[in-house]
Amino acid sequence: MVLRVAVAGASGYAGGEVLRLLQAHPEVEIGALTGGSNAGQPFGALQPHLIGLADRVLEPTNPQTLAGHDIVFLGLPHGQSAELAAQLGEDVLVVDLGADHRLESAADWEQFYGSPHAGTWPYGLPELPGHREALRGSRRIAVPGCYPTAVTLAMYPMYAAGLAEPEAVITAASGTSGAGKAVKAHLLGSEVMGSMSPYGVGGGHRHTPEMAQNLTPLAGEPVTVSFTPTLAPMPRGILATCSAKAKPGTTAAGLRAAYEKAYGAEPFVHLLPEGQWPHTSSVYGSNAAVLQVVLDEHAGRIIAISAIDNLVKGTAGGAVQSMNIALGLPEELGLPLNGVAP
Amino acid sequence: MVLRVAVAGASGYAGGEVLRLLQAHPEVEIGALTGGSNAGQPFGALQPHLIGLADRVLEPTNPQTLAGHDIVFLGLPHGQSAELAAQLGEDVLVVDLGADHRLESAADWEQFYGSPHAGTWPYGLPELPGHREALRGSRRIAVPGCYPTAVTLAMYPMYAAGLAEPEAVITAASGTSGAGKAVKAHLLGSEVMGSMSPYGVGGGHRHTPEMAQNLTPLAGEPVTVSFTPTLAPMPRGILATCSAKAKPGTTAAGLRAAYEKAYGAEPFVHLLPEGQWPHTSSVYGSNAAVLQVVLDEHAGRIIAISAIDNLVKGTAGGAVQSMNIALGLPEELGLPLNGVAP
Amino acid sequence: MVLRVAVAGASGYAGGEVLRLLQAHPEVEIGALTGGSNAGQPFGALQPHLIGLADRVLEPTNPQTLAGHDIVFLGLPHGQSAELAAQLGEDVLVVDLGADHRLESAADWEQFYGSPHAGTWPYGLPELPGHREALRGSRRIAVPGCYPTAVTLAMYPMYAAGLAEPEAVITAASGTSGAGKAVKAHLLGSEVMGSMSPYGVGGGHRHTPEMAQNLTPLAGEPVTVSFTPTLAPMPRGILATCSAKAKPGTTAAGLRAAYEKAYGAEPFVHLLPEGQWPHTSSVYGSNAAVLQVVLDEHAGRIIAISAIDNLVKGTAGGAVQSMNIALGLPEELGLPLNGVAP
Amino acid sequence: MVLRVAVAGASGYAGGEVLRLLQAHPEVEIGALTGGSNAGQPFGALQPHLIGLADRVLEPTNPQTLAGHDIVFLGLPHGQSAELAAQLGEDVLVVDLGADHRLESAADWEQFYGSPHAGTWPYGLPELPGHREALRGSRRIAVPGCYPTAVTLAMYPMYAAGLAEPEAVITAASGTSGAGKAVKAHLLGSEVMGSMSPYGVGGGHRHTPEMAQNLTPLAGEPVTVSFTPTLAPMPRGILATCSAKAKPGTTAAGLRAAYEKAYGAEPFVHLLPEGQWPHTSSVYGSNAAVLQVVLDEHAGRIIAISAIDNLVKGTAGGAVQSMNIALGLPEELGLPLNGVAP
Repeated sequence: MVLRVAVAGASGYAGGEVLRLLQAHPEVEIGALTGGSNAGQPFGALQPHLIGLADRVLEPTNPQTLAGHDIVFLGLPHGQSAELAAQLGEDVLVVDLGADHRLESAADWEQFYGSPHAGTWPYGLPELPGHREALRGSRRIAVPGCYPTAVTLAMYPMYAAGLAEPEAVITAASGTSGAGKAVKAHLLGSEVMGSMSPYGVGGGHRHTPEMAQNLTPLAGEPVTVSFTPTLAPMPRGILATCSAKAKPGTTAAGLRAAYEKAYGAEPFVHLLPEGQWPHTSSVYGSNAAVLQVVLDEHAGRIIAISAIDNLVKGTAGGAVQSMNIALGLPEELGLPLNGVAP
Repeated sequence: MVLRVAVAGASGYAGGEVLRLLQAHPEVEIGALTGGSNAGQPFGALQPHLIGLADRVLEPTNPQTLAGHDIVFLGLPHGQSAELAAQLGEDVLVVDLGADHRLESAADWEQFYGSPHAGTWPYGLPELPGHREALRGSRRIAVPGCYPTAVTLAMYPMYAAGLAEPEAVITAASGTSGAGKAVKAHLLGSEVMGSMSPYGVGGGHRHTPEMAQNLTPLAGEPVTVSFTPTLAPMPRGILATCSAKAKPGTTAAGLRAAYEKAYGAEPFVHLLPEGQWPHTSSVYGSNAAVLQVVLDEHAGRIIAISAIDNLVKGTAGGAVQSMNIALGLPEELGLPLNGVAP
Repeated sequence: MVLRVAVAGASGYAGGEVLRLLQAHPEVEIGALTGGSNAGQPFGALQPHLIGLADRVLEPTNPQTLAGHDIVFLGLPHGQSAELAAQLGEDVLVVDLGADHRLESAADWEQFYGSPHAGTWPYGLPELPGHREALRGSRRIAVPGCYPTAVTLAMYPMYAAGLAEPEAVITAASGTSGAGKAVKAHLLGSEVMGSMSPYGVGGGHRHTPEMAQNLTPLAGEPVTVSFTPTLAPMPRGILATCSAKAKPGTTAAGLRAAYEKAYGAEPFVHLLPEGQWPHTSSVYGSNAAVLQVVLDEHAGRIIAISAIDNLVKGTAGGAVQSMNIALGLPEELGLPLNGVAP
Repeated sequence: MVLRVAVAGASGYAGGEVLRLLQAHPEVEIGALTGGSNAGQPFGALQPHLIGLADRVLEPTNPQTLAGHDIVFLGLPHGQSAELAAQLGEDVLVVDLGADHRLESAADWEQFYGSPHAGTWPYGLPELPGHREALRGSRRIAVPGCYPTAVTLAMYPMYAAGLAEPEAVITAASGTSGAGKAVKAHLLGSEVMGSMSPYGVGGGHRHTPEMAQNLTPLAGEPVTVSFTPTLAPMPRGILATCSAKAKPGTTAAGLRAAYEKAYGAEPFVHLLPEGQWPHTSSVYGSNAAVLQVVLDEHAGRIIAISAIDNLVKGTAGGAVQSMNIALGLPEELGLPLNGVAP
């Protein structure tokens, strides 16, 4: 039986990427495409790369247009998912691409997002211990942030194996699609091409508490995160350079073994052979995360680096992977492993 | 029954793209991956984006490694396909990604390629009248050049409908992967980023006679081609701006009707609604060609513009499409229609 | 005696580039920097690359803030220059970076710009025969459009020498700064990186009549222009591919001689040695235009290709060059010849 | 009296940038341009953006071609400068763009460069305390590495003021010109566009000991450096994200005061106003370094970020600045402060 899917926020980058992936998914059919200010426009003008949906028209986002679907993806501005989800029925699988249901701490939510906390939903990072089980059969999924996906996958094995001190220092470079499709002067092509720049430096980025939330339980002690995001001149991709002091006794062999154990059976996390390092181009359009880790003995630090496509494993692909798990489908169904390169 | 495929030249851009597509094709399995100077190296180091084939090893290209496959793709330097194909057996489907079997004129071949002419194979541009029939059941396929694919699709309807004078003026911008993976100083990232430059100006590009060969029979008179290729700062994509003087009596409505007639039933050629123009980003990783055409009444010219991914519709995707036809499989099998954007 | 300069529209791309050049000009000092909606903001936040002016504040654009300067550059939206210039005094040198005073034909102006015609000022393309003389001593200068600069320099010698038929076919690729700093969705970095796309196809671009106006008097017959602009994934640069049918009797040697004669003494137009083609990177940040021309004997066409920096020779540099001439200063003063590459 | 300058390695990126800057320098004239395998070729084909030198020819690098100049810049492969310099005369100002004379520790040199240590020359980072004095009158200058320039400028004030713990954690993104002009497959435009990737991770990059050498004397205790360089899809620019734990008692105000004190009088180091962060585009083609620093109180770390142009302040511009000091010329002579943006 084919499942019927609606996408709210279909004219945005996250919603568009969900649709690109779902059109290649054998168990779903695309139902309503909805949006805000663009409602009524031909979809082919809004997302010209989704050639298979060019003849559609964007409908307004509301409970009526979203009714009658088995699955609803929400790509909405922060703070709008909870109320809409409440009107969708408990048997509908609702996948929230936004941040509303990620953070456990109401204090963190209010500090970083400035609105009332809506509570948490099962967190869609299946590679984390115990998360796959929590997703199975769930009808609500909170899709992780793109940076937390890249960082958590890079760092969790070093913490789960007790090899790293709990002060994580992270610099990540993101393609511009991570900033969304809203028009802002600093995101003009003329401004971003040929330029690297940081933003949200010094602890201000909203994804910081989400990283700490993911790593702390595995470390068994509170992990402090120093996170510096940078904007890179490319449309897609995150390269996360993550480091922490090695705990006494950590060896290169033990470190590698921890990562091999964590990811040996994972379909979408690819630990590279020693000596090879991740390139974001390797995962362009792919749901894979590619990783490498090394012990810098001189500096006494572990450096783990991951590359993901922020729109795929970092958003839409992770969402479809979790959807597959929730529905009892094969986890890899409809998800590309190979990147589009060069 | 699953068909077994070998790819010669698997470490190059064309061969790599064939493999990316074929790994998503339900009727084939990947056999030998072969190459030249890289033979013996782990495939994951050569094509790190083909994560699903990372554990393979590149074998040398020769009749022995290619034996025992139902289908062989040849991504070889010009002049090497014919001899190798002769040793592969007539029941094997041989798909030549190179130029060896494209040109009907031995004189053109020798002038532009400087080696003996190897004869022609069925030409893999199914959208041209009569070509789909010629491909059906064939065991040899000559895959068209990337520029001729973009240009022929943009221009053939205006010639088939008798609307254009036989002097085509074409400027095309190509991503750098069209120049292949051989290391040359002018293809360094430092040289190409932020820069546009022409090459092969004045009639010297090898794809020029191939364009004339495609358009002339449809025009019913010899078509002269003035072709200027340019290198654009992007990894993939061709944008072909093609124009010709309108024949007397040509109307905007008649022009559009000719294109609608030509492409109304084509699965991979998408004529855009009036007022919308092609972007190469729309077909990134996709087998689609997107087109628009307009009559400039003041200048008395028809301008047709197409966008393709040079590695997909322009090479590997066109090859798989023709393979599907040759084998009697559904033409669209395993081929993405949506582009990867933004 | 140092001359005092004001720049209206100083927070835009054209105004900013004028300032970058003028800070290196030994005969001027920077006076008022004015703008529209950004007035009151620190200039260092608006143009962070103009480090030498970081401590300035943007003032509002009006006759009072612009008063008391010897030279005023106007980088204003179309239609606003004439009225403001009338209030600036006839002894002030007013350099209009916009289009208001370029077109001689009121009909063309109204058709392409949709507002009343303001008349013409001396046209700042000193390389055109007679123009240098007209600029000398003038107190009003109309700076040419960026595309007309690239196209006119590429094509005028073939017309002045009587070698080309009067139907010009032009495709040009421009960096995104040519579209200005106003925020529009299709100019987002995510949209333009990795993508080529056309716009204003079929005769609609406003620079089309300006090209015809420049070429027609030199050709001695009306030149029809078919112009297709494309947007390229780079911040700066124009590559203009310009062609026309060769008149009977045209030879390669005669063609080259015409270009050598036209540009042999020009300080900023660099005809490349035969066999070398222009790259936009060669003129990044430079006031030079680099050119090449060839006769395609098979197709019977002349192809001339030019590369300029749209913000320098195409706007601000051409403006300063004309300013130097108007003021009787050495024409090259303060203008870079070398590009910033790689 | 105009000084005569030769550049060895003139066809490389560093040598080319020295020439771009020196052509705008009022006190020098360009003498011999020399190179290795390209000797004999027209310079305009090798460095097409240096339009003012297009008519020159590259000579071979040897003591004869370099004789008779007041100043010689050496842009040579590591290990070749010392021997050549010995043949140039003690009164000639020799500026080594390479690494040969940077490292004080012979052990570090041998470990990271694998050849005999050639001793040190005065180190050309005038902003470091005491260095300007050491450069004055010197006839030998070792130009710092590009990464050490960016990192040292970002971090030295926090160490000089005693605010930071001696374990520096650094991630830097560099444009591809930092890797030089030698053709390598991973530097092809097709590979680098749209992609971020790390290299030399875990302490292996040759610039690591140079950073420690610069910071340790100012910290008054050995500074350990964990350095991760990444390759960014842009031709130029370094963005260095540098952090260290704050020593107890460090305040945001004290931190800012330390940077204001260090750089208040520096002509080429621009500490941004609070809240504004460096973009590499702001220093494209400029000799400026732009900086910002912040205290992350939650994580207990200082984060300092700098942007430079790797070819200007990071190589050729820093070299000319030091040359000016050595010769007693005004330090800023011939050096652009404003960047070329957008």
